[in-house]
Amino acid sequence: MPMERLERAIEELKRRRVGVGIVLKPQNIYYLTGFYPTAFAVLLLEDEPSLLVSPMDEALASRSGVEVEVVRSFRRRLRRIGGRRVGIEKGYASFEFWERYLRGRQVVSLGFIEEMRMVKDGEELRRIRASARVAEKVLGEVEALLDSVRSERELAARAEYLLRREAGSAFEVIVASGKNSSIPHHTPAGELDTSCVIVDLGARVEHYASDITRTFSLSGGGVFPELYEAVLEAQRAAIERCVAGATAGDVDRAAREVLREYRLERHFLHSTGHGIGLEVHEAPRLSRGSRMVLREGMVVTVEPGVYRELGVRVEDMVLIGKRPKLITSYRK
Amino acid sequence: MPMERLERAIEELKRRRVGVGIVLKPQNIYYLTGFYPTAFAVLLLEDEPSLLVSPMDEALASRSGVEVEVVRSFRRRLRRIGGRRVGIEKGYASFEFWERYLRGRQVVSLGFIEEMRMVKDGEELRRIRASARVAEKVLGEVEALLDSVRSERELAARAEYLLRREAGSAFEVIVASGKNSSIPHHTPAGELDTSCVIVDLGARVEHYASDITRTFSLSGGGVFPELYEAVLEAQRAAIERCVAGATAGDVDRAAREVLREYRLERHFLHSTGHGIGLEVHEAPRLSRGSRMVLREGMVVTVEPGVYRELGVRVEDMVLIGKRPKLITSYRK
Repeated sequence: MPMERLERAIEELKRRRVGVGIVLKPQNIYYLTGFYPTAFAVLLLEDEPSLLVSPMDEALASRSGVEVEVVRSFRRRLRRIGGRRVGIEKGYASFEFWERYLRGRQVVSLGFIEEMRMVKDGEELRRIRASARVAEKVLGEVEALLDSVRSERELAARAEYLLRREAGSAFEVIVASGKNSSIPHHTPAGELDTSCVIVDLGARVEHYASDITRTFSLSGGGVFPELYEAVLEAQRAAIERCVAGATAGDVDRAAREVLREYRLERHFLHSTGHGIGLEVHEAPRLSRGSRMVLREGMVVTVEPGVYRELGVRVEDMVLIGKRPKLITSYRK
Repeated sequence: MPMERLERAIEELKRRRVGVGIVLKPQNIYYLTGFYPTAFAVLLLEDEPSLLVSPMDEALASRSGVEVEVVRSFRRRLRRIGGRRVGIEKGYASFEFWERYLRGRQVVSLGFIEEMRMVKDGEELRRIRASARVAEKVLGEVEALLDSVRSERELAARAEYLLRREAGSAFEVIVASGKNSSIPHHTPAGELDTSCVIVDLGARVEHYASDITRTFSLSGGGVFPELYEAVLEAQRAAIERCVAGATAGDVDRAAREVLREYRLERHFLHSTGHGIGLEVHEAPRLSRGSRMVLREGMVVTVEPGVYRELGVRVEDMVLIGKRPKLITSYRK
């Protein structure tokens, strides 16, 4: 699969009359070659593509089938890259990289690689689903621990263990309880207050991430039921708009409109979701006003949340199609 | 402490006649303000510094004492940054950031922030030492598990749990055993081969990282003793050069020279070590030929390794002073 992608990417470059594309982002290198760098590495996209790798990565890279060049000094090697017109990942390559190696040349975006990555193929969907299964399983184990574990950190540590024992963890598990739940990216700390517990976790299977959030309440009283119902309804409305042809902004608006009816819109502090795959957050972003058109085969999260005296967030992964298809659907 | 640092940084800017410094790197923002962003945020360094934050980070940022501006659209806000001469973190800000917001202006490096960070103050050393204590404790627990755990992944997952239960984990734990140990950044997978097991782990305490590596062998036969002895001797020689006034390159050379005597130099695939603090890898890098002069108060790792049919790496943290001072010293 990577080899086909590599050819398509080289075709794209030619169409744009770019002499050489300089790929630095590990996920893009992996997507195009099957080699996931563990140290600094460069994929030179040109007629005869090649991987520039550190001695540490020689063994891994040489399994890719792409020509490998072991580099002792990247500074010296990168200065030798020729061409009047070069492609870079504009949002990933640093200003310094450009200043040092590319100043004075025409610079073209390699954004089409991340556009390719938006639509998942069969093998990618298999891995994403496998990753989602692990996340759901761990979420179940975490839920079962709620009445016995005493601190947020302990619960998060257990969740990390369970994710890593099965596969890998895609990002630091969030456990935010009681008033901490009103901080969207709270770092686990303090006692576990089971009146309201946000658990946000994801697995990683063969480099592909999953991402799921549930908000639990063992007591279920106070403002919790009202906030929870509003968020669930907002999520349902947003998921319904996850169809090919809708825009990312449509999905975001659907969630926001429901929360407005509940007078909770100003407590919804982030966007409605994001694409997911090799990165936990990738294109398309489901953000306010986005005109990006959703296409069949994209995978996104849908995660409205409200953050008041308590926070509630519910997040699932959805495959875009003629109808939305839930990839996660954890319920006790 | 952050406030003093902020003032020093603003002084530096003035000395360089820079109107505004645009700080994007979370570790630098934290170092200067005490606010650790959980979403995209910007510190504007100027006479009246301010933090631009997403609504998600409003609560956290407002505890910092720096003026906070909640931003709904960073695109719009960043276009309004004025000044003919601006400072950026050249190695962190993307080409796209420059192209979108700064093209046509004079761009000056904010590298002095990371230079400030190299020399640790008392509070930073306290946290680094606390982080090192956690790492050593977990390493001991991991060593005790070697003869009962059956897979690399299970051992790594247990280590992550132990690190996170105590504090936090600074990076993904590496467990590389048997022939996998010959891959410096191996991803844990497969059976645990206790003839040779590299364990590389680090804790995070109040945002400060530790990093320690040991190579264990339960059988202790074959080439292991020879490789191990060479690496230990190389490490000892390198640590001896960790004194104020020596260069980073001197430390690297000391390790390399010992390994050359053992005819193992070409199996030493990486540099000898790196600064550590808010980032696991930060300045100074102990790499070949570096002329960076070591100063009292810097903290570095010293981690020679050889990778042949088996790999051996030993890593400790050292505080630079008139004499080198070990921050980690785990031995069973």
